[in-house]
Amino acid sequence: MRIPKHIGIIPDGNRRWAVKNGFSKEMGYEKGLKPGIKVFELCSKIGVKELTFYGFTMDNTKRPSIQTKAFTKACIKAVELLSNKDASLLVVGNTDSPMFPKELLPYTNNRKTFGRGGIKVNFLVNYGWQWDVKNLINNQSNSNNVIGLLHSQDISRIDLVIRWGGRKRLSGFLPLQTVYSDFYFIDDYWPDFKEEHFYQAIEWYNKQDITLGG
Amino acid sequence: MRIPKHIGIIPDGNRRWAVKNGFSKEMGYEKGLKPGIKVFELCSKIGVKELTFYGFTMDNTKRPSIQTKAFTKACIKAVELLSNKDASLLVVGNTDSPMFPKELLPYTNNRKTFGRGGIKVNFLVNYGWQWDVKNLINNQSNSNNVIGLLHSQDISRIDLVIRWGGRKRLSGFLPLQTVYSDFYFIDDYWPDFKEEHFYQAIEWYNKQDITLGG
Repeated sequence: MRIPKHIGIIPDGNRRWAVKNGFSKEMGYEKGLKPGIKVFELCSKIGVKELTFYGFTMDNTKRPSIQTKAFTKACIKAVELLSNKDASLLVVGNTDSPMFPKELLPYTNNRKTFGRGGIKVNFLVNYGWQWDVKNLINNQSNSNNVIGLLHSQDISRIDLVIRWGGRKRLSGFLPLQTVYSDFYFIDDYWPDFKEEHFYQAIEWYNKQDITLGG
Repeated sequence: MRIPKHIGIIPDGNRRWAVKNGFSKEMGYEKGLKPGIKVFELCSKIGVKELTFYGFTMDNTKRPSIQTKAFTKACIKAVELLSNKDASLLVVGNTDSPMFPKELLPYTNNRKTFGRGGIKVNFLVNYGWQWDVKNLINNQSNSNNVIGLLHSQDISRIDLVIRWGGRKRLSGFLPLQTVYSDFYFIDDYWPDFKEEHFYQAIEWYNKQDITLGG
């Protein structure tokens, strides 16, 4: 079986899950923590080498502050939970903004090893696609590797993007690392994560003809 | 009904169609011409303002020359057919390469009006996502509009991408104009185009909640 080297996760539908279950919207984010750790564990188990989570974006920070506080708190908590595992974490996002949580600054410049290390985990926090790509402007490089010039240069090409919550779009998720990615969409909301979702995505990916645009 | 302003078309599956129908692979491209004109007419009819077709990419030119000749010929023929319609055409791609057909050079620098003009048609010919984005490097601009600095700067944000041929990926299609696009995937091969495909995509798009990443 061909296991994707690098999986991107778009964990959408937290707010819709909350409303559907009788909570206020911002209550949905905390319900995304357990699925996140579960996906991490499944990826470690099957031998995925790199895993990127869409935390929150600069676009998202325009939402009501009760929501921005709730998703920021959930991101900090996610890193706490991960710190008890074996992983190598990098947080990527615009740190020159009050919306970036200072608790996560220690993870932004260098990849931090938790436990025995292992799978690379990238966590997008206050990420913006324009912010990311603007690092190319005024760059003096002659490199042919465009990705190596981005703010997100330590995040490699993504093989498989899995998005929960029924929407079929990238919403600004790493536009240059996803140019050749295969997309797997799941209707269920992220807090309703089931292991089957993950395994179905992996089985589907195994059947795709990978050409990298060729 | 909310009609997308700008639709992107990924007309995939020509070679698989040819093989399935007992032809050699390169015979499939010509069968994509009629569907292309049909989509153009449907877009004009319902009031789409801009339409972008994925012709061929720099990645594609690594294929056997019998195929590259066939898809290049089909692209030239497509422009001939369009020249009998009311449209405003721009061809976008890397012209500094022998793979770019000289017949299409007149359409690369300025948008050319056919008939009474009208819908903007962008045609990607020998397009490469790295080529496109590299225009940002060494750019002296202070602009906040990243898309305006690309080689493809005259192509605007895309609302809806429709891909035929069953694959769920972008394959390098305008990575920055598609950051917020909704994706509609059709299993049928492009030469098996039916009007229903198009109308189903439009109806599906009408039901999406458009947030532009917010």
